[in-house]
Amino acid sequence: MAATLSIVGVGPGDPELITLRAARVIGSAPVVAYFCRENHPSQARTIAQAHIGPNAREMRLVYPFTTEISVNDPAYHQNMSAFYDQSADRLAEVLATGSDVTLLCEGDPFLYGSAMYVFDRLRARCNTQVVPGIMAMNGCWSQALAPMTHGDDVLCVLPATLPQAELANWLERADAAVIMKIGRNMPHVRQAVAQSGRLEDAVYVERGTQGGQVITPLAECNGKAPYFSLVLLPGRKRVR
Amino acid sequence: MAATLSIVGVGPGDPELITLRAARVIGSAPVVAYFCRENHPSQARTIAQAHIGPNAREMRLVYPFTTEISVNDPAYHQNMSAFYDQSADRLAEVLATGSDVTLLCEGDPFLYGSAMYVFDRLRARCNTQVVPGIMAMNGCWSQALAPMTHGDDVLCVLPATLPQAELANWLERADAAVIMKIGRNMPHVRQAVAQSGRLEDAVYVERGTQGGQVITPLAECNGKAPYFSLVLLPGRKRVR
Repeated sequence: MAATLSIVGVGPGDPELITLRAARVIGSAPVVAYFCRENHPSQARTIAQAHIGPNAREMRLVYPFTTEISVNDPAYHQNMSAFYDQSADRLAEVLATGSDVTLLCEGDPFLYGSAMYVFDRLRARCNTQVVPGIMAMNGCWSQALAPMTHGDDVLCVLPATLPQAELANWLERADAAVIMKIGRNMPHVRQAVAQSGRLEDAVYVERGTQGGQVITPLAECNGKAPYFSLVLLPGRKRVR
Repeated sequence: MAATLSIVGVGPGDPELITLRAARVIGSAPVVAYFCRENHPSQARTIAQAHIGPNAREMRLVYPFTTEISVNDPAYHQNMSAFYDQSADRLAEVLATGSDVTLLCEGDPFLYGSAMYVFDRLRARCNTQVVPGIMAMNGCWSQALAPMTHGDDVLCVLPATLPQAELANWLERADAAVIMKIGRNMPHVRQAVAQSGRLEDAVYVERGTQGGQVITPLAECNGKAPYFSLVLLPGRKRVR
């Protein structure tokens, strides 16, 4: 296929944190695709909205999520795999007509992005280009005014879905750390941070760079967190 | 002081990978400061050039580097500390006149940025804001078409200055890894990657997103690397 699939990171939420290149690629796209939940607007589309051309065709790729299926259930992964197969096939159909397609992605496409699963399926079948985006973590640490890695600090990026003991073990070793995708994992994330002895230094950020942003010490957080929240542990501060 | 110090990430090198917000903040800055080496242009300034206003005053913060001092020499850290003190004082003098100052920073300001050392010294003395930038690593993994973290992969960001055994240990544990600031550390970086059994999967990127970009398997690299180079180890690919 001669057409190109462009996977474009639109950043962490603030529409001004999109790159000039992302704005240009989106603006010239004949077809703009994005993931979303049923009956919900796409967060990536909302961020990119000002740049989508008036004649662009839009493709919604609607997650098959039902809250009844846990991510620990094998059926969840089977459903998601089938969904990514179908999404890739839908994009391939458009690409086969010779039309370029731009797939929007929150944050950066290649750090825990749904778009990676489509990329994995299409990379051998069409031309691809990837436009990086500001990640949730650097959007958040900028807002929190939290410098992360000085000198030769090591930064570990940890999904909140890891078991508590594993999380605590990483936190003990890392100089700086970010715990992503908190959501319903908040209780064991908090315990893992406490277990590693770093609760005093941990910063909780909810909806970073977006409307309703919350920045607070993790020690003062209890209860629930939305999926779009993370915890920052600045590095060991080897001051020069 | 009522004036604001804006620390602005300008991304990994491609001038199009600057954010809309960075372009706006730079464009309205009465004073634009940046780090540079003596008799060399500032890389950050070069990236941001198109956005600097015609009447902006520019401040060069010239590193006291001499190639005769090794980073392992305590004199290096003393010199750098004195340099950051002086740089902070120079910026504070301008801020004290009521003028805002914008300090440019390659990549993201809070990931191994020189600007952090100035921020640490000035944060209690003036208003600050930080604009995140695309980091070298996501600029590079986008160019290399290398998806990094699927599912609950852990990503470790490792400075090449770590001892070889320590690097190898991190690489054995991490799912995905980025080794930053290769430069003269290339020989022990390559050995550490080999020691961890991951040489086949490692990708070397030099001057990512810039002119003269090189992307090649690390296994095919020998000899020297510039400071602006890194190694990518994509995650364990738990495919959905």
